[in-house]
Amino acid sequence: MSLSELSRDELVALHAEQSAAYDALVAQGLALDLTRGKPSSAQLDLSNALLSLPGEDDRTDAAGVDVRNYGGLQGLPELREIFAPLLNVPVAQLVAGDNASLAVMHDSIVFSLLKGTVGSPRPWAQEETVKFLCPVPGYDRHFALCEQFGIEMVPVPLGEHGPDLDAVRALVADDPAVKGIWVVPTYANPTGAVYSEDVTRALLAMPTAAPDFRIFWDNAYAVHHLTDVETPALDVLGLAAEAGNPDRVFLFASTSKITFAGAGVSFFASSAANVAWYLGHLGKRTIGPDKVNHLRHARFLRDADGVRALMRAHRAIIAPKFALVDQILSDRLGGHGAATWTDPDGGYFISLDVADGTATRVVALAKDAGIAMTGAGAAFPYGRDPRDRNIRIAPTMPSPDAVAQAIEGLAVCVLLAALEQQLGGQA
Amino acid sequence: MSLSELSRDELVALHAEQSAAYDALVAQGLALDLTRGKPSSAQLDLSNALLSLPGEDDRTDAAGVDVRNYGGLQGLPELREIFAPLLNVPVAQLVAGDNASLAVMHDSIVFSLLKGTVGSPRPWAQEETVKFLCPVPGYDRHFALCEQFGIEMVPVPLGEHGPDLDAVRALVADDPAVKGIWVVPTYANPTGAVYSEDVTRALLAMPTAAPDFRIFWDNAYAVHHLTDVETPALDVLGLAAEAGNPDRVFLFASTSKITFAGAGVSFFASSAANVAWYLGHLGKRTIGPDKVNHLRHARFLRDADGVRALMRAHRAIIAPKFALVDQILSDRLGGHGAATWTDPDGGYFISLDVADGTATRVVALAKDAGIAMTGAGAAFPYGRDPRDRNIRIAPTMPSPDAVAQAIEGLAVCVLLAALEQQLGGQA
Repeated sequence: MSLSELSRDELVALHAEQSAAYDALVAQGLALDLTRGKPSSAQLDLSNALLSLPGEDDRTDAAGVDVRNYGGLQGLPELREIFAPLLNVPVAQLVAGDNASLAVMHDSIVFSLLKGTVGSPRPWAQEETVKFLCPVPGYDRHFALCEQFGIEMVPVPLGEHGPDLDAVRALVADDPAVKGIWVVPTYANPTGAVYSEDVTRALLAMPTAAPDFRIFWDNAYAVHHLTDVETPALDVLGLAAEAGNPDRVFLFASTSKITFAGAGVSFFASSAANVAWYLGHLGKRTIGPDKVNHLRHARFLRDADGVRALMRAHRAIIAPKFALVDQILSDRLGGHGAATWTDPDGGYFISLDVADGTATRVVALAKDAGIAMTGAGAAFPYGRDPRDRNIRIAPTMPSPDAVAQAIEGLAVCVLLAALEQQLGGQA
Repeated sequence: MSLSELSRDELVALHAEQSAAYDALVAQGLALDLTRGKPSSAQLDLSNALLSLPGEDDRTDAAGVDVRNYGGLQGLPELREIFAPLLNVPVAQLVAGDNASLAVMHDSIVFSLLKGTVGSPRPWAQEETVKFLCPVPGYDRHFALCEQFGIEMVPVPLGEHGPDLDAVRALVADDPAVKGIWVVPTYANPTGAVYSEDVTRALLAMPTAAPDFRIFWDNAYAVHHLTDVETPALDVLGLAAEAGNPDRVFLFASTSKITFAGAGVSFFASSAANVAWYLGHLGKRTIGPDKVNHLRHARFLRDADGVRALMRAHRAIIAPKFALVDQILSDRLGGHGAATWTDPDGGYFISLDVADGTATRVVALAKDAGIAMTGAGAAFPYGRDPRDRNIRIAPTMPSPDAVAQAIEGLAVCVLLAALEQQLGGQA
């Protein structure tokens, strides 16, 4: 029965019950960590062949270039050929880099700040104010980049198929300080939202006051399906060109959650003009990426189907964990109306909304019970969740047993915090 | 006999002889490249074991951390332990990164521009002017970084043991816009100069108008000896602290010319305060470097002595090429006084000074004869060699035969250009 329908006596009784459950939880002395979207050892094991690739006799690419030496700024062609169809971009407009797409995003911002980008009236750092729209809840590391560089973040609500378009359109239409929007188009972190083609087209076509407005299209989970429906990536660069705004999109991706989280390959894709801009600045920073790692990945993955097969193996490992979370939350919280949560079709996260005003308390309770959750508010700019209700669950890293234990415990904390609130205090 | 001692008739005769030699050279249809300091295949082969390391069963560091996953911003401890003694820095103050120290330098500048560094009154980008001192001849990619970010370059003459200290002291003493100096302390690119301890101490102790003056100490060739004298790196961080300017040095290094040029490991070292500053900003850019590559390198190199042994194997391959260049230049140009050149004890380059005003012509002649040299002036800020005399020779990449052919040809071009000049024209 929903908490709101309970009498005070019933609430008091349930609170006593949950307090006891919580005390028992604390007594277990757990040490569980659901903070970050890290792959588990079992997932990493899927790519262990990389640890001895490419092999001592394999050191040139198809064009005969020695991958051990300097050069090749855009990245190994055969690796780009594997990922171009998966990301639905032309090979010529795809750049392969080192291990972190976050770094590629960072550098795209840095280059824009210090040099301006294609169409910029001046370097962004010379603007009075630079603003980015941030669909919320969103990815904390995106927001940390904005904060690092003094880019003002404007939250916009994120729905199941993209952000509130009216809000977005109104914000970009008149304010030339709005230079960008963060988008995780596929299985968004943390809600699992998937941007529809309609929403995407609207974002690509909308008039913007800034001539150099950019969609930071972080397709981190493009192939990270949790169901049989393996929706292909939208041709976002083609759609942008069609909409008359060919330079609007910076696309980012990586193999961090395909091969090795710390030793994978990152990608940048955009219009030909933007790729030339990016490589022009990148070429001052480095003579080239780690092409041996590119060759290693090309040999291991073989082709786009190789990636798809690998992702199915990941799914076999992690989908049961997502199912566990959903099942336990349903069992423990479903009847009480004390929380809602997403059941994503892919990606790495579940977004849990607890009773308004209790997320901070839930995370604190969980922490004291040895269950580390991402900080409440982490999915919001400046860490400020206006309703203090959102908690990100990252179930991939721990074992199924640990996930189950953690979510069982978390459910106790959610209910206890909600009851405390209903009863008007934390007693 | 020196050209200056020849009569006009003798000059005309020698010019006719060299013109014929040049025509014969062009007729050979050479295609040789001495432009970049790239290791040869034989050098890269020394590290081929890396291509199958660390191996499928080797995936944790000494502390039990899974190198395949995210994290470890400062780099693998065991790799830092190998290089700390070679660079003469404390392990705790050494950061290991991805494959390019140029990128670490780039980012150090970017962080300083956008955020300021330790002791900065404000971010460098908010200063009216930022200037760097550039000992010349120097490294073109250093200068390209300054140019990229609008940092004004002030050339200072580089001697055998460091830059002209009086010039440096005068420039930094009163002008707070002077924020840095580029230093390649060991076997400088391109002259082979080695900064003495006295010069180093002077640079560390000199009063500077800028409170956040930085020495960009690019020890790219710290262990790249070409003789039996394997001079250890100075304890530059310790000396800086001793001089009362602990935060003055940013130290950079890499394994680009130790293992693989395109797939090695880079290093940053500095005071504890600067390392905290660097990691603080780096942590917004990436969750960590490629630790698998760190482990791969640690397994392959084993310890500092492993690196030293590897460098001796490099020396066995490249020292004969340096000797060839010296011998051919001596044979062909020694008697004519038409050029001087360095005979470095280490590093990757020979710096050739031809007759004033003829370097551009020499490079053009060489190019037309199929011998690609680094552009004249490349070793100077903005590519402007005021005396148009300096040419950088990079002898490591081609085979000994190719080096010999190229330098024989180059000598013809040097002499021909000098004769053209003496005879008052390019006829």
